[in-house]
Amino acid sequence: MPVGTAGTVKAVPQDALETLGAQIILSNTYHCYLRPGHLAIGRMGGLHRFISWPWAMLTDSGGFQVFSLSKLRKVSEEGVRFQSHLDGSYHFFTPEHAMEVQIALGADIAMAFDECTEYPADRTRAEESLRLTMAWAERSLAHFRANQNQAPWAHEFPGRSQSLLGIAQGGMYRDLRRESAERLVAMDFDGYAIGGLSVGEPRDLTLEMISEVLPMLPRDKPRYVMGVGYPDEIEQYARMGVDMMDCVLPTRAARHGLLFTSEGRITIKNKQFAEDQGPPDPNCDCMVCRRYTRAYLRHLMQAGEALSGTLNSIHNLAYYLGIMRRVRESMELAESSAQS
Amino acid sequence: MPVGTAGTVKAVPQDALETLGAQIILSNTYHCYLRPGHLAIGRMGGLHRFISWPWAMLTDSGGFQVFSLSKLRKVSEEGVRFQSHLDGSYHFFTPEHAMEVQIALGADIAMAFDECTEYPADRTRAEESLRLTMAWAERSLAHFRANQNQAPWAHEFPGRSQSLLGIAQGGMYRDLRRESAERLVAMDFDGYAIGGLSVGEPRDLTLEMISEVLPMLPRDKPRYVMGVGYPDEIEQYARMGVDMMDCVLPTRAARHGLLFTSEGRITIKNKQFAEDQGPPDPNCDCMVCRRYTRAYLRHLMQAGEALSGTLNSIHNLAYYLGIMRRVRESMELAESSAQS
Repeated sequence: MPVGTAGTVKAVPQDALETLGAQIILSNTYHCYLRPGHLAIGRMGGLHRFISWPWAMLTDSGGFQVFSLSKLRKVSEEGVRFQSHLDGSYHFFTPEHAMEVQIALGADIAMAFDECTEYPADRTRAEESLRLTMAWAERSLAHFRANQNQAPWAHEFPGRSQSLLGIAQGGMYRDLRRESAERLVAMDFDGYAIGGLSVGEPRDLTLEMISEVLPMLPRDKPRYVMGVGYPDEIEQYARMGVDMMDCVLPTRAARHGLLFTSEGRITIKNKQFAEDQGPPDPNCDCMVCRRYTRAYLRHLMQAGEALSGTLNSIHNLAYYLGIMRRVRESMELAESSAQS
Repeated sequence: MPVGTAGTVKAVPQDALETLGAQIILSNTYHCYLRPGHLAIGRMGGLHRFISWPWAMLTDSGGFQVFSLSKLRKVSEEGVRFQSHLDGSYHFFTPEHAMEVQIALGADIAMAFDECTEYPADRTRAEESLRLTMAWAERSLAHFRANQNQAPWAHEFPGRSQSLLGIAQGGMYRDLRRESAERLVAMDFDGYAIGGLSVGEPRDLTLEMISEVLPMLPRDKPRYVMGVGYPDEIEQYARMGVDMMDCVLPTRAARHGLLFTSEGRITIKNKQFAEDQGPPDPNCDCMVCRRYTRAYLRHLMQAGEALSGTLNSIHNLAYYLGIMRRVRESMELAESSAQS
């Protein structure tokens, strides 16, 4: 899922996302809540209509940004009090309020409110954090189930409603991860996410946690690993059975001039590309690689031109979506071979 | 002509310009000369190929930017010594060198090197400035004619060559303007421009100068008024017989949130648009007006999102190009009525 932080996948127009074949994008609850506000978005019919994205959309729980961006946060059993990173104003998020916000935004998929356990976290801290996340998961689900037909577009699309995914936490402790998964599955969410990864831990630990939790999550519901990753990571996890991932990496790296290509990563600003007339990636057929040269992308970056972020982002998203497409195709092929 | 300062119409991808029906864009010689450099662009086949714009293109003379952007410039009969606004490096532009640069860039239309007379300028100053511009026009033309088949793409397109337009100056003095036009026409350029307008003078003075010069320029060659203007201005001048105009206004204003619409100018950041679900311009069918709301454009601007500049620019360019299209259609209609 390309990440559309504040109702826009940074620098990429919606029609370009469609051309790229993006089927779903993620928007950040925290950002949309602060600006322009979930109530305003709700009055305008929800996020889909507000940003003109009629395809699938997921909103995160707001938890991750509350913990990573906001100032002076205070966590209690009830919820999190925090200060906006924009204007210092005070806000209070409870699981119930996080659900209200996500219902007003009206994404197809909402996420339970969780505490993203930091890394490293000792056992006591991870246990306490998990206890809170599990209590909040129950409250999120209860509030969501009681109100899930109140999306701003509900009257227009009778019979459709939002889905809610639970988030497994547990730090880097395998037994806590298992406990987390087991308890979430018992709550019966519409799908399950593995959160609290890609927070600074070594990659073999990320893999270990995913390997531990994934088999415990029902295969007939979406299984989502949050906040990953590098191209080879997302391919690896997808082949393990992960259905959904999101990451700012392709777009954020693009804005800093880092391009992912079939020949490895390139820093487009480097002097070696000054007169390189090849496409960014010779094996890519995205609209950027079909039209522009490395020399031109380098120039745009050097000159600080806005088009730089747009074109780099489009290519990196094409590269990421291309990986997922190939994985899907090879898995479908394997399945149909197995059946015949 | 949308203005593509440094080889990009700021924030607007080339395919969007094509969809808008832009037939020609302007690139700034001064900017391309400094970065990435005309020699590099020449080695890569010229500006068309470098920026992937296979349609018509014009480069200005560099004169205007040398006078408005560079530091410590020193004008002599020979040319202008100036310091780059980017890194303070020293450069020397003569009419001959300006032609070399524009030949390396290889735009379809190049411009004679001129001195853009500032406003206000007293009679003595305007006379001296005009004398220089006329001497430089002759030198520009002589050097251009001797080398005009050396565009980087010349061997690929035998029989095609660049064109050179002369620039009339003369400050706000009608007789100097007339003298300028007369002498330029005698030199036999491929077309003629009226420069040194829209430099701070009142608009009735702009109109007076155009009215004075335009009838003296041959109707069978392009007549170009440089650096104008507001929507009603460009319509007025086009109806008077001006064939070409360029202005950063639609794109620069867009980046500051000023939208030109059939209902007047709107400052999209204003609070009144916070939940306005109408299109930017209800009478516009551009890709922005068909897809997005005023509320969304306002949000993008408020949030400082890159997409803001892109979408605002696309709409403003659509509005400007729409004016020109309607003027052309009504003039064609008038002509065909006159013939029948």
